[in-house]
Amino acid sequence: MSKGLFITFEGPDGSGKTTQIEMLKKFLAEKGYEAILTREPGGTAISEKIREIILDKNNMEMDYRTEALLYAASRAQHVAEVIKPAVESGKTVICDRFMDSSIVYQGFGRKLGDDVRIINEFAVQGILPDITFLLKVDPEIGKHRIKAEEQDRLELEKLEYHMEVFQAYQNLEKQNPNRIIGIDASGTIHEISEKIKAHMERIIL
Amino acid sequence: MSKGLFITFEGPDGSGKTTQIEMLKKFLAEKGYEAILTREPGGTAISEKIREIILDKNNMEMDYRTEALLYAASRAQHVAEVIKPAVESGKTVICDRFMDSSIVYQGFGRKLGDDVRIINEFAVQGILPDITFLLKVDPEIGKHRIKAEEQDRLELEKLEYHMEVFQAYQNLEKQNPNRIIGIDASGTIHEISEKIKAHMERIIL
Repeated sequence: MSKGLFITFEGPDGSGKTTQIEMLKKFLAEKGYEAILTREPGGTAISEKIREIILDKNNMEMDYRTEALLYAASRAQHVAEVIKPAVESGKTVICDRFMDSSIVYQGFGRKLGDDVRIINEFAVQGILPDITFLLKVDPEIGKHRIKAEEQDRLELEKLEYHMEVFQAYQNLEKQNPNRIIGIDASGTIHEISEKIKAHMERIIL
Repeated sequence: MSKGLFITFEGPDGSGKTTQIEMLKKFLAEKGYEAILTREPGGTAISEKIREIILDKNNMEMDYRTEALLYAASRAQHVAEVIKPAVESGKTVICDRFMDSSIVYQGFGRKLGDDVRIINEFAVQGILPDITFLLKVDPEIGKHRIKAEEQDRLELEKLEYHMEVFQAYQNLEKQNPNRIIGIDASGTIHEISEKIKAHMERIIL
């Protein structure tokens, strides 16, 4: 049995990942590929419990190292319970955020450096995305797409942090040109979706 | 201001760590040292929330990597909020379990190897114990000291696992002869306490 495709979506909050993931799932279903949708942090009962601790607004005293390790712990469980078994049994998996998010938000945004990559490589057991769609939208525009009352602890961080994260995403894209597909996400939902589909058609034909 | 002493206690469950920690605190108080007692996993509000996830009997599907990362996350918060500020302001800190527990329980017991040490070095920001008392008791005897209904998820592991952990503790002791003080914990509470006090008197005089 051949390995299934592991697709991840990355980008600033408000870049439209959730909508595009739903549209990609529908497109893949039309082509005969049943895709499993999942998200980070979360995706399993244990990961959801960890997610609650990470995003709780009462935990403002959380150390950056704690935060990075909790994301990696949540991911380890998500990989072990959901992503690894699915991919190994030939299923397509689409995941909203994965290891790249930790590298840019914790490694660069929090200035924890390359240790974040090392910790995450331990967490994922060699399960790395085959394709990553990076939805590129100016973080200031992305921020305005999210209603203030819906913003969690991380979304409340100041704009400078989100600009650094966006720059780190663009650096990752340059370093991984075969895996990371940058998509200009300033257009309409339909325009963005067409770009993603065009890329997928080159792969799954 | 000089750095405070950071003392940790290690050993199998049922080795009597809690009792000995209380007795050492009393002894240090008589000598004029006010010691802060703390424990792992836990010691802060965030760490306690993480501890609940680790020890919850409903989480039997927890991956070993998730477990190791959660212990490290709890420790990172504990160091940042409690241990580091206390030690840096000259206070004595006594901690029930620390990094050595992860190295032996996760690194050796779970066979996750040296990655556990690397992850924990990231977590502790260079805050390592000055003295570690290793209470050495045959794990089978230690196990019988704990009532069955009080055993949490980890204590329910089979004896073979606890024997491997105990062997790993003894290896760590050999590798760190200046820091780790092995104490035969098969004697009475009073006998064990006298050995610990005798060692402390050589240090704090």
